[in-house]
Amino acid sequence: MSQSSTSQIEHLIALMAKLPGLGPRSARRVVLHLIRKRAQLLTPLAAALTDVANSARECLNCGNVGTDDICAICGDERRKNGEICVVEDVSDLWAMERAGQFKGRYHVLGGTLSALDAVGPEDLRIPRLIDRVATEEVQEVILALNTTIDGQTTAHYIADQLGDNVTITSLAQGVPIGGELDYLDDGTIGAALKARKPF
Amino acid sequence: MSQSSTSQIEHLIALMAKLPGLGPRSARRVVLHLIRKRAQLLTPLAAALTDVANSARECLNCGNVGTDDICAICGDERRKNGEICVVEDVSDLWAMERAGQFKGRYHVLGGTLSALDAVGPEDLRIPRLIDRVATEEVQEVILALNTTIDGQTTAHYIADQLGDNVTITSLAQGVPIGGELDYLDDGTIGAALKARKPF
Repeated sequence: MSQSSTSQIEHLIALMAKLPGLGPRSARRVVLHLIRKRAQLLTPLAAALTDVANSARECLNCGNVGTDDICAICGDERRKNGEICVVEDVSDLWAMERAGQFKGRYHVLGGTLSALDAVGPEDLRIPRLIDRVATEEVQEVILALNTTIDGQTTAHYIADQLGDNVTITSLAQGVPIGGELDYLDDGTIGAALKARKPF
Repeated sequence: MSQSSTSQIEHLIALMAKLPGLGPRSARRVVLHLIRKRAQLLTPLAAALTDVANSARECLNCGNVGTDDICAICGDERRKNGEICVVEDVSDLWAMERAGQFKGRYHVLGGTLSALDAVGPEDLRIPRLIDRVATEEVQEVILALNTTIDGQTTAHYIADQLGDNVTITSLAQGVPIGGELDYLDDGTIGAALKARKPF
């Protein structure tokens, strides 16, 4: 009895220590805090994690994370069709949404092309993007990829593939060279979206 | 449907952001990481949190955290009776246990005396400590309190209350002035325990 009781808490600490940004020491601090705030925090957090574990999935259309086959943004009829904003990652989509300027649809690639890591177009959602552009009457594709070498390589590849059938733009002013979308403030993202320029 | 699916994940992010050391940005990062590692991390973490939420409680004897009325250390017959190590907090008990030198029993005060915050002896587990010393045939009480003003005030108060019936020692060499137990390395804690001196 006494061994298993300790190891339940130790097991929780070991799992917490695997989260990004947490180590063994901060995991212990978090678990003690949770045990002290059982009603306010521990029980609701356990329930929220169970809910998300049971229901989270990738949107079949755009790759966003949600709890249905089609995500909240793809299913929202108030959003504008005909504009697709292409991002590397769900965290970038969230950053765009926090800026609150873009009212169209998204497409999450799930990474960038990388010769070093052997990531090709089929490993990302690039074929699905080309398919969407052909079938969804898209007028504009906004390439909101990070301004890293891999991000820009991917942007050039996508622009090549899409050809002249659609206007292709990229985020403009305000995106610092070498920076990553997820780390920008909302104002900068909004300004860059407004000043977007032909790719 | 689409609104509730987003808000499940947003609800989880909001709860995660309340954990010590995490903010909104790191909470989003953690939740995305969890969704990507559903089988390895998200589901086990949800289960571990539920287990601990259902079973964690304070030991009725010493105040340690466990999943039974009597904690693993109080219930362990291989540990030495007659020596009680008094600590402020469960995190300090864990730090002592990591040092691995002490094989006796613990008593967790749950804080320190503080005139400013109006914390008196009855708000801590000091009456219970005096009771334990009287009934458990205790030969030595080791005061392993933080070397802060409040910690040392509390140590002096406890020593006064226990009187001459029992040997009272405190951690010695190696504990830096102004330092906190939870932040010390295991070697320092072990050295300080070995070199303990009469209080």
